[in-house]
Amino acid sequence: MGLSAFDHPILSGLFGDPELAGLLAVEADIAAMVRFEIALAAAQAECGVIPQDAAATIAARLDGFAPDIARLRDGVARDGVVVPELVRQLKAGLDPDSASHLHFDATSQDVIDTSLVLRLREAALILDRRIEALDAAIGEIAARWGAHRLMGRTRMQDALEIRVADRLAAWRMPLRRHRTRLAEMTGRVFVVQYGGAVGTLAKVGPEAPAVTAGLARRLGLDAPDRNWHSQRDRLVEFADWLALVAGSLGKMGQDVALMAQAGGDEIRLSGGGGSSAMPHKQNPVGAEVLVSLARFAAGASGTMAQALVHEQERSGAAWTLEWLVLPQLVLATGSALLLGQRLAESIEGIGQA
Amino acid sequence: MGLSAFDHPILSGLFGDPELAGLLAVEADIAAMVRFEIALAAAQAECGVIPQDAAATIAARLDGFAPDIARLRDGVARDGVVVPELVRQLKAGLDPDSASHLHFDATSQDVIDTSLVLRLREAALILDRRIEALDAAIGEIAARWGAHRLMGRTRMQDALEIRVADRLAAWRMPLRRHRTRLAEMTGRVFVVQYGGAVGTLAKVGPEAPAVTAGLARRLGLDAPDRNWHSQRDRLVEFADWLALVAGSLGKMGQDVALMAQAGGDEIRLSGGGGSSAMPHKQNPVGAEVLVSLARFAAGASGTMAQALVHEQERSGAAWTLEWLVLPQLVLATGSALLLGQRLAESIEGIGQA
Amino acid sequence: MGLSAFDHPILSGLFGDPELAGLLAVEADIAAMVRFEIALAAAQAECGVIPQDAAATIAARLDGFAPDIARLRDGVARDGVVVPELVRQLKAGLDPDSASHLHFDATSQDVIDTSLVLRLREAALILDRRIEALDAAIGEIAARWGAHRLMGRTRMQDALEIRVADRLAAWRMPLRRHRTRLAEMTGRVFVVQYGGAVGTLAKVGPEAPAVTAGLARRLGLDAPDRNWHSQRDRLVEFADWLALVAGSLGKMGQDVALMAQAGGDEIRLSGGGGSSAMPHKQNPVGAEVLVSLARFAAGASGTMAQALVHEQERSGAAWTLEWLVLPQLVLATGSALLLGQRLAESIEGIGQA
Amino acid sequence: MGLSAFDHPILSGLFGDPELAGLLAVEADIAAMVRFEIALAAAQAECGVIPQDAAATIAARLDGFAPDIARLRDGVARDGVVVPELVRQLKAGLDPDSASHLHFDATSQDVIDTSLVLRLREAALILDRRIEALDAAIGEIAARWGAHRLMGRTRMQDALEIRVADRLAAWRMPLRRHRTRLAEMTGRVFVVQYGGAVGTLAKVGPEAPAVTAGLARRLGLDAPDRNWHSQRDRLVEFADWLALVAGSLGKMGQDVALMAQAGGDEIRLSGGGGSSAMPHKQNPVGAEVLVSLARFAAGASGTMAQALVHEQERSGAAWTLEWLVLPQLVLATGSALLLGQRLAESIEGIGQA
Repeated sequence: MGLSAFDHPILSGLFGDPELAGLLAVEADIAAMVRFEIALAAAQAECGVIPQDAAATIAARLDGFAPDIARLRDGVARDGVVVPELVRQLKAGLDPDSASHLHFDATSQDVIDTSLVLRLREAALILDRRIEALDAAIGEIAARWGAHRLMGRTRMQDALEIRVADRLAAWRMPLRRHRTRLAEMTGRVFVVQYGGAVGTLAKVGPEAPAVTAGLARRLGLDAPDRNWHSQRDRLVEFADWLALVAGSLGKMGQDVALMAQAGGDEIRLSGGGGSSAMPHKQNPVGAEVLVSLARFAAGASGTMAQALVHEQERSGAAWTLEWLVLPQLVLATGSALLLGQRLAESIEGIGQA
Repeated sequence: MGLSAFDHPILSGLFGDPELAGLLAVEADIAAMVRFEIALAAAQAECGVIPQDAAATIAARLDGFAPDIARLRDGVARDGVVVPELVRQLKAGLDPDSASHLHFDATSQDVIDTSLVLRLREAALILDRRIEALDAAIGEIAARWGAHRLMGRTRMQDALEIRVADRLAAWRMPLRRHRTRLAEMTGRVFVVQYGGAVGTLAKVGPEAPAVTAGLARRLGLDAPDRNWHSQRDRLVEFADWLALVAGSLGKMGQDVALMAQAGGDEIRLSGGGGSSAMPHKQNPVGAEVLVSLARFAAGASGTMAQALVHEQERSGAAWTLEWLVLPQLVLATGSALLLGQRLAESIEGIGQA
Repeated sequence: MGLSAFDHPILSGLFGDPELAGLLAVEADIAAMVRFEIALAAAQAECGVIPQDAAATIAARLDGFAPDIARLRDGVARDGVVVPELVRQLKAGLDPDSASHLHFDATSQDVIDTSLVLRLREAALILDRRIEALDAAIGEIAARWGAHRLMGRTRMQDALEIRVADRLAAWRMPLRRHRTRLAEMTGRVFVVQYGGAVGTLAKVGPEAPAVTAGLARRLGLDAPDRNWHSQRDRLVEFADWLALVAGSLGKMGQDVALMAQAGGDEIRLSGGGGSSAMPHKQNPVGAEVLVSLARFAAGASGTMAQALVHEQERSGAAWTLEWLVLPQLVLATGSALLLGQRLAESIEGIGQA
Repeated sequence: MGLSAFDHPILSGLFGDPELAGLLAVEADIAAMVRFEIALAAAQAECGVIPQDAAATIAARLDGFAPDIARLRDGVARDGVVVPELVRQLKAGLDPDSASHLHFDATSQDVIDTSLVLRLREAALILDRRIEALDAAIGEIAARWGAHRLMGRTRMQDALEIRVADRLAAWRMPLRRHRTRLAEMTGRVFVVQYGGAVGTLAKVGPEAPAVTAGLARRLGLDAPDRNWHSQRDRLVEFADWLALVAGSLGKMGQDVALMAQAGGDEIRLSGGGGSSAMPHKQNPVGAEVLVSLARFAAGASGTMAQALVHEQERSGAAWTLEWLVLPQLVLATGSALLLGQRLAESIEGIGQA
């Protein structure tokens, strides 16, 4: 439980997304980092870069690794990244020979970026399923009330009558495009990071492509043509997608809030929020919060894009900026999809027969 | 000549992009709007929605239309959009019967959005060619000096030696991904807008899909499943792409500026900017400005994403926001590619043999 | 006439602000730069840094200077700033001795920043007067209809009845605070820039404070404790203020648009925008555009704040970013105040007696 | 411990700010809310709006209130705000008569905004002290090494030699202005919120100004001319200030990182971050992270400004957006000041004698 709305002890009642929060929690992060180290050793052993025995020992001993969180925190305070201390802790559980083969020709960014990508891939699957479910939920609304009549409004004025199905289509069509976009970017975003100190894998040498491919295969990620540690367009593309999804839900939320304001004929929602001052009110809280999340995500995507200016072979400044922005953006979009689903399911009537 | 850096009488020396500026100028906008009206009439005539004679007259008479710009400006002041007054001017050149068939079941947004998309498609082609040319220019640098040695730097510190080719690869790889992204989004972004007053094409009726398809075919655009006038993800996706491209160039600019600071061994540039106070200086102006444009584009993409919250059947507020942001973002990215090309061509040496 | 909405041949009908546009136009910029050079020479002569004769000649000859704009544009393309070429042109009109005393111990940034500040100060006076006028215009609405009844709405739901005066107060109170804020920041923002090549005024030497004070006095600006060329908080503070003003107007616009949607009882506006598809509509265009401008200004202020990271003694990248953002932000706020005034004056009734 | 970098189990080693985190934690929030309710009852009793006995009981019984957090979370999920459920829990500890006088003519926003302002005021005091301490720390650097020589750099190029004191002045001067700004805005930002359901305090009636003044006095806050619940310029002004402070620190961080890159002659830092791949490196982690925080804060301030468009008497959407942005922005600025102090104290030498 924390200080951001997404994991706040009470605000998480509204914004919480336990499924995605689990992926972004420190435990999942460290587990993915350990997975990286085990897979790297296995891939290097396969290519003859390190001994098979070392890889086997690493796999056996690191399984179930329990980190010393307090010392990891001290490590981050000192090094700016967790990996030097994490590797120290991992090596402490190994014999000296195996330890010398752990994290071979790898650098902090390899571990941290790959852990991120592994978990973003899982997050993307979850988000994709939620988009599909929301599309289906809106489909059910369309099936029940799609033929109802609704006042179409342009520029905040009554225009001409439309059918409920017309407005619902404007909520659904973007969702389908978002799924297509995600499918297209999959091979670009969910890509292993492995480049060593400055991206050249000088110690691994000619086996580097094979090791990278083996590492990627073991982690279920794509293998890049070469390391991408200073090329952040992959992650910004994903951040942009998150904001696109949240933005489309913001449009749905804004529409519902305006329908709720127009009165009972336009939309009927179950379970609106109560007021401490006016018991008669039923506030369309979920609809409003979709707008908030859309605006938050839009801003966050713009800030994330600042991280594209990633200087030289590794920018501490630009890389760290991502850590401040991307997790909150993932959670905002996840939260929006949960709220959107709940909102769709709370619709008890829409338009006039 | 204007007030923004992109068309400013003197700043355009640095930021100007005459090719893209031409596409975004009012003349090109109105020409594309007229093209929309002619193509719409032709498509409607083909489907029997309006008489063939009317469409033929419209095509003949609107060809070479010369707008009264002052009255269009007054029209925008009054209506918030140019189309009512533009249609008035167009009809004034027609006989009453043909006039009654012009702009049939169309609305301002159809005309304005389609004109935008027509010109963005041309802009995208230009940008794509520039990205390809920049990739080639960097390729030539790699061919000449790729094997040279360079100090790799991570977190603003000397790390290990790399080859010039390694750093150049970090500039080139994103360019190729940007071209792939553009190809993927083509069918989503360059799509005709036609929906009438509230998106339902009620007057055209059952012929609506055929008219839309005919309209799109005539304009060389894709035909959507249905109108998308309140679904702005298509345009925001393109805006995000623009910021991705500009951001990758910002990384290249930042690298060059840092190399220039490190001194003559790292990079030699021809034609650096002069100083009014220090004649000995050769400022890496182009490199710096790439960083500026990247940061500008990042911010603009975040603001553009606010326009996703497009309420009801047409949001004047959200739609107008796009007009403030998107043209400047197109120009920023175009300008960055021109500067990037010039910068690449100004490199007279890089790294040490 | 240009490509941005603020000086576009037709969109300026809606967004145009000729008064502020004049201040931001190249002619005003160059005139202010020449004023800087004349005042600098006079201040230096007063302190015995350059001969009185030279200062007198400079004042006489530079008066009415007509720039060669095309060569200034080429200069910007080459140097990234206009000043080296401008100084060349200015010197061409002087005898060699006077020319040697022009722009003494000054650098491009001194000229450009001071020209900006001079014009921002004028812009601020204009904006302040407009805020005062808008406050008065809302005051007149309050005087006529303040006692009328209006449905108060919270969270997009009918809440309790309020008086029209209550809602109007929420529009007026921020305006007054904005005027107070502007008054407070005056001594921080409208400050002369003079530091020479790296800010140390090494050539002027011990007379530097006196020259700076004399320069400031002649220009009607404040004199800083020392140069501020790499400390951009002054300008970002002003940019933030612009976005605050635009944002408060956005709230007013959003309220009016929602009242217009609720129907004729809540608000009656003269001269709403027409529709090309629906002649019966009266669109609250001005109200909507206030929302657009507020969102644009919010985004621009966030981008402007990126320029605070201004490295070393002068950052080409951060400084140039300001040029892309700040003028458009000034125009957005100016435009919002013009539209707000027009909107206030178009109110023909509000609430129920 | 949470998911944002500012309270993350390991990243907080770098970004953590326990002092500010305590102010933003749920316990402090609820305690401030209870304080509001007690002070409101006392102020109302003083004015004869509720019985003295009720106020005394409320004060006695609510002291030491222990919330049921799980039910508060459920309340937020239902109502979008915590207050209805919180008031329910508070009333459960009271006799029916006193309970009927609790939260009299108050609404959720009164409680939540005032709690926020109470804690922001404490945060501001802390931040102000830290700015003062940082100014002093830089002053000590100036005292020791201010006369040392340093290569001044403009536009990423060697320019002319400056003294260390020159560069340090560019770090210090903005800090002093930030303190002045904060002092100026104090009377605008740290203002009690009390307006009831729609801002009119209809139930309190003519005693409203006196109750508000008494409430403010008890809480040590300023009393506004009238409620400001839909006028968010006060909070955005404070957010802008936070980003200004973080931005100035980002400039200092960028300078230090560039000096560290230039090599040991320019700056010597103790305790640089280690690398898992290159044991020889000493990364200027704190300096880089200052840049990250500055860019994050800039973006957050721009998003916060979107909340100025706060429609009607209460915007759930705009208000909730603040909750997503402002706490993280407070923490970013607090974190930057802690890191800036640590960075200043880690300087072991700067420039050349």
